[in-house]
Amino acid sequence: MSEFIKVAVDAMGGDNAPVEIVKGAIEATQENEKVKVYLVGQEDAVKAELAKYKYDAERVEVVHASEIIETAEPPVLAIRKKKDSSLVKALTMVKDGECDAFVSAGSTGATLVGGQLIVGRLKGVERPPLAPMIPTMTGASLLIDCGANVDARPSMLVQFAKMGSIYMENICGVKNPKVGIVNIGAEEEKGNALVKETFPLLKNCPDINFIGSVEARDIPSGMADVIVCEAFVGNVVLKMYEGTGAALLKKVKQSMMTNLRSKIGALLVKPALKETLKEFDLEQYGGAPLLGLKGLVVKTHGSSKHGEIKNSVLQCVTFKEQKINEKIKEKLSAVDEADL
Amino acid sequence: MSEFIKVAVDAMGGDNAPVEIVKGAIEATQENEKVKVYLVGQEDAVKAELAKYKYDAERVEVVHASEIIETAEPPVLAIRKKKDSSLVKALTMVKDGECDAFVSAGSTGATLVGGQLIVGRLKGVERPPLAPMIPTMTGASLLIDCGANVDARPSMLVQFAKMGSIYMENICGVKNPKVGIVNIGAEEEKGNALVKETFPLLKNCPDINFIGSVEARDIPSGMADVIVCEAFVGNVVLKMYEGTGAALLKKVKQSMMTNLRSKIGALLVKPALKETLKEFDLEQYGGAPLLGLKGLVVKTHGSSKHGEIKNSVLQCVTFKEQKINEKIKEKLSAVDEADL
Repeated sequence: MSEFIKVAVDAMGGDNAPVEIVKGAIEATQENEKVKVYLVGQEDAVKAELAKYKYDAERVEVVHASEIIETAEPPVLAIRKKKDSSLVKALTMVKDGECDAFVSAGSTGATLVGGQLIVGRLKGVERPPLAPMIPTMTGASLLIDCGANVDARPSMLVQFAKMGSIYMENICGVKNPKVGIVNIGAEEEKGNALVKETFPLLKNCPDINFIGSVEARDIPSGMADVIVCEAFVGNVVLKMYEGTGAALLKKVKQSMMTNLRSKIGALLVKPALKETLKEFDLEQYGGAPLLGLKGLVVKTHGSSKHGEIKNSVLQCVTFKEQKINEKIKEKLSAVDEADL
Repeated sequence: MSEFIKVAVDAMGGDNAPVEIVKGAIEATQENEKVKVYLVGQEDAVKAELAKYKYDAERVEVVHASEIIETAEPPVLAIRKKKDSSLVKALTMVKDGECDAFVSAGSTGATLVGGQLIVGRLKGVERPPLAPMIPTMTGASLLIDCGANVDARPSMLVQFAKMGSIYMENICGVKNPKVGIVNIGAEEEKGNALVKETFPLLKNCPDINFIGSVEARDIPSGMADVIVCEAFVGNVVLKMYEGTGAALLKKVKQSMMTNLRSKIGALLVKPALKETLKEFDLEQYGGAPLLGLKGLVVKTHGSSKHGEIKNSVLQCVTFKEQKINEKIKEKLSAVDEADL
């Protein structure tokens, strides 16, 4: 059969579906000829969008799914009931090996739950973490876990550290990535019960380059490449990043409009400022992988435009080519045996 | 006796002690004639600083303390061993009723531990939270708890909500302050075990204006006046605020230096920008009170300059005049009885 890397795309998920989703998926096939996309969703709507583009018909397929899971629906219930939804159908294609990966801008909850229930975990993986890239002063770091497993146990955080290291090294090309655990102080004795218990486990883990505690203050400066935390804390980190950034930029813009002098200054500064702030845009890095599944599930922002969808699909290619799941399986089951 | 409001100031605590501490304390006495400060620290050093200023000798007293607790020292041990430290001596003065309040820019750990061990909790208070003000798009919110009690229980968070409401209403003049709990989604069923257990307690609490979950993304926009969270999360919120702000401003400055055009623009924009960013400076609000003690303990930034020290001392006056502790005692013990 073909050697295509096959990505199922949730054509109906997200604020801008299907328009931006279809556009991004097509762009991915244009940029990389190894990609084949399966646009899963309501056939008429998807085909109407497809009609706008020229594309290699061999590498774009439409898979009809009549239902849509809405963001507000309780995830478990939605997945059980809506068997003919784009999300359930696409995840089933990954489970059955018809596709290598799945990309969705739809319901985060349903994507996380569906990933675990339908695709299933790799052997040895306790819990699959959601791991977005966040921009820093020096590049970008992987935040793992940012929302999949609240109240995680120490052993899970150790697995997050390992999976995150594999991802950063093989997908982002960071040699021997620095791993830090989010903490409320730099000293080893600081922290809550979870961090205190996890710290020595990370310290004694031979597979990772553990640099110790990272205070939240030092995350944006790029102190660690892999930032390990429990999902509640990770979500707060990510959302504070977005919220503080948005508020501060609004303030900067307001200040530039206060008088004529600053308005003129703003006109002069604008191009350079825009360029710089692009580097700090969370969305440029594409979606967040849900690591440790038998296949790849990538969750992109609900507000994703075609660029983020394209990047997310292309990310699946690297993931597959770099054999990330094989590497995770190897590292995580090796440890299981060592633990016996 | 005098009707002065008596504030013990840790003259040896913080990066800029005793220079900035003494200066700030004197300024507080100059700005409000009800204030009497007790400068606790090494007599020679403090007196050398005092010699620089004109002040009302009746309202400035030096209390000798030979030892200094360093930031890196383990708090409990330091407090037990260094009986003649400025921190232990000053806290003892609050405990004995010689002073109404204590202000320190020194070790956070020692201040928190000392506050509880030496000054002691008000009747009915389970744990005293540390509650700084953080700037928002619409003013400022109280973040409670930002570092005193990791792994707190739900009943403690309910007390934080009540104490925070009293503080915001009486110190900051916010009528019927909106109380939100930091969460990873807006829906009631979202959250970790702690938040899920705390949510209905807050919802059914008659003393507060509970508005539900607040996602971290909405904290900087000023969605809630009182932001309730467990200390680990609160610390992450506060430090992400600082870290993201600093990183983003550095980027903005860099972008303004990229070429001649933007350099000229920067010169024009600078005054307005500086004015706006002052509003977003965490330090302008003075120190963070440790609420629920028999007396007031205020922790200011380690890097505090005289302005923050002055504001923190003056904050003690409002605290005393508004009878915050009496109000806390009333609310918290009333509930204790209702619970029986």
